Amino acid sequence: MTGDVINFADKFDLIDDRWKPRVIAEMNDYQFKLAKIEGEFVWHDHEDTDEAFIVIDGELRIELRDGHVDLSAGEMYVVPRGVEHRPVTDGVVHLMLIEPRGTVNTGVEGGEMTADNDVWI
Amino acid sequence: MTGDVINFADKFDLIDDRWKPRVIAEMNDYQFKLAKIEGEFVWHDHEDTDEAFIVIDGELRIELRDGHVDLSAGEMYVVPRGVEHRPVTDGVVHLMLIEPRGTVNTGVEGGEMTADNDVWI
Repeated sequence: MTGDVINFADKFDLIDDRWKPRVIAEMNDYQFKLAKIEGEFVWHDHEDTDEAFIVIDGELRIELRDGHVDLSAGEMYVVPRGVEHRPVTDGVVHLMLIEPRGTVNTGVEGGEMTADNDVWI
Repeated sequence: MTGDVINFADKFDLIDDRWKPRVIAEMNDYQFKLAKIEGEFVWHDHEDTDEAFIVIDGELRIELRDGHVDLSAGEMYVVPRGVEHRPVTDGVVHLMLIEPRGTVNTGVEGGEMTADNDVWI
């Protein structure tokens, strides 16, 4: 057999922390990651890649320097490469990220919210 | 502003046919596609790329030459490059595909179920 079916709810059950993306699958050199996020992240950008956000549960605001977008469950948004953004939530959001392997959550900015990369669940 | 929020349900409302993937977003040179599928597809493979399946609604079986996997809503599976597969459903399935721009739905096999590529909704 050639890999497992991945159930998002089962994977989210394994996550207790916030803002630490876990890899659940790879497609070529891209990774699918899940994270529980809550509160305010740091402003950052990814200079080499776009970044896709899919909200699985909850309400997510992505602040942009020229405005913001609001996402609910069943919605997605792609932040273009080099565009500064900051995710902000009121409660816990179950988030899927799709981006190239090696993409760091805080992009080029780094800092204390930088999570270990390539951690699988 | 830098692109729109994409609501999956709104996009699926625009699809009346079956087995014809529509592009809803791009991330670098990858595309997010939605399709309504129903019944049996053709055996095929993609020799140059993995292909990610996410079930949004319904029940999907992906037949493989050495078995099968069954996916429900909120589940995903990545078919590795070069692995022959055939999606099969009992009813209508709302499906998301993620794969490189230019990937044809019937892969290298072609045939009458081959859909126009790069059609956006």
